Amino acid sequence: MPEPSIKTHRALKWRPAPGGAADSVIETLAVEEPLEIRLGGRRFTLTMRTPGHDQELAAGFLLAEGFINSRAELGEVRAILGRKGEPEPNAIDVLLSVPAAGLRERLKRNFTISSSCGICGKTSIESIQRRVAPLAAGPTVPAAAILSLPHLMRQGQQVFSTTGGLHAAALFRVDPRGGSDPVELAVLREDVGRHNAVDKVIGYALTNGWLPLSDSLMMVSGRLSFEIVQKAAAAGVTILAAVSAPSSLAVELAEDVGMTIVGFVRDAGFNVYTCPDRIIV
Amino acid sequence: MPEPSIKTHRALKWRPAPGGAADSVIETLAVEEPLEIRLGGRRFTLTMRTPGHDQELAAGFLLAEGFINSRAELGEVRAILGRKGEPEPNAIDVLLSVPAAGLRERLKRNFTISSSCGICGKTSIESIQRRVAPLAAGPTVPAAAILSLPHLMRQGQQVFSTTGGLHAAALFRVDPRGGSDPVELAVLREDVGRHNAVDKVIGYALTNGWLPLSDSLMMVSGRLSFEIVQKAAAAGVTILAAVSAPSSLAVELAEDVGMTIVGFVRDAGFNVYTCPDRIIV
Repeated sequence: MPEPSIKTHRALKWRPAPGGAADSVIETLAVEEPLEIRLGGRRFTLTMRTPGHDQELAAGFLLAEGFINSRAELGEVRAILGRKGEPEPNAIDVLLSVPAAGLRERLKRNFTISSSCGICGKTSIESIQRRVAPLAAGPTVPAAAILSLPHLMRQGQQVFSTTGGLHAAALFRVDPRGGSDPVELAVLREDVGRHNAVDKVIGYALTNGWLPLSDSLMMVSGRLSFEIVQKAAAAGVTILAAVSAPSSLAVELAEDVGMTIVGFVRDAGFNVYTCPDRIIV
Repeated sequence: MPEPSIKTHRALKWRPAPGGAADSVIETLAVEEPLEIRLGGRRFTLTMRTPGHDQELAAGFLLAEGFINSRAELGEVRAILGRKGEPEPNAIDVLLSVPAAGLRERLKRNFTISSSCGICGKTSIESIQRRVAPLAAGPTVPAAAILSLPHLMRQGQQVFSTTGGLHAAALFRVDPRGGSDPVELAVLREDVGRHNAVDKVIGYALTNGWLPLSDSLMMVSGRLSFEIVQKAAAAGVTILAAVSAPSSLAVELAEDVGMTIVGFVRDAGFNVYTCPDRIIV
């Protein structure tokens, strides 16, 4: 069976010197396909994602966006069968264990947030705060352990290394006693969408009973947006690190919920934007 | 007046050697704020964007997503006034010159695409193809001109250079006679969301009467997703280049509509994934 997260495609590879050669090569592409998430058989949402770990993606999305609050509320995540009894590759059905009235309320509340927070960032931050439980004190992490994160991430990014086209999100367990390995990779997921990679990691943690993630550190490739901080906060993450820059609203939300944001994590150092007490310098 | 696309924030900058110094510094952040786009006063959509060029963003979004087809259908884009008569910073209202029945049909068609393309990528590609006019033959571009794009992009990325936190999209005019400057930067926009940067550039082109963009080349920072190819195709772009990798579905859609996709555009060369005849090697 071919690896579903990779496809090959013929491309013309042009190199300027010597002589400007153009070679016909086989390039490896990261697969992007739509996934339709249904709730009890009804169309709910659609996301463009890299196939694989779709059950985690659906579970994590529902938790991270506030439609469920615990593993107990996630009933069953199941394939949708086609006419020949084969599972449809790009659709998944979720049966929730939430009373119908409660679910209606959550759908209404969350869609209200999406459609009413246009006037100012403050309003949306307040809406998010209302549905995110206060974060725990969480662990402390030595600065040297933060520096080791990019290396540990790269080891787990199998698809990125072949395509250069995927984002990644990872959870690291933090050893509260410090020691020689204060952080340890627990799970890493890759996807064409950074938010999907985060949902997959949260879904994995949810189905394994790890939530809230107050003793874990989350790291993402690329940049940190408001949306990523919001998802991490819903899962109880206390320390969120990124390879690149956070946005203004990501930093403001992190400040309000008490999350530590570490940005520009590179071999040459890093920046701590909020709640620096969790980083031992 | 402060530059609305940048905010400053105090951060702790940690460097490993010598001695692991942690300095308190003022870092510059790319601003992320929600923008609510209204149609005739009614809430229509919400996007997290970097403030600035909001009228272009709204106009470009409506064209790129198929809600309008021409400048003539874009009636008026106007600010929404608050209680004190001040314009609301994060909301904008668009009056369309589309008959109500026609608009209802387009809303229905586009929302149907979003909610029905979950089963397979093919279905969504077919839906998109139906609403994208066939692309023109378009210009040809010398390989050396493609190599010059990253340098020309960096010169225009003012906010990225101070924050490291913004995506960019740019349009280049292509000189059909070749000559010493075969490509020339026409417009560049930056945003925390790559899709917003593309919408802003398309909106600028739309309001200046440049559409269809068959004689322009579009370049984006980062990766190429299905969504970006779809937006570029709606604006008639024939050559789309990116700093990083295209996804599988981006390449498939480009192949189907006849768009040239150039990826991994770096100083050391580039890859052509589709319709290579437009690149003179």
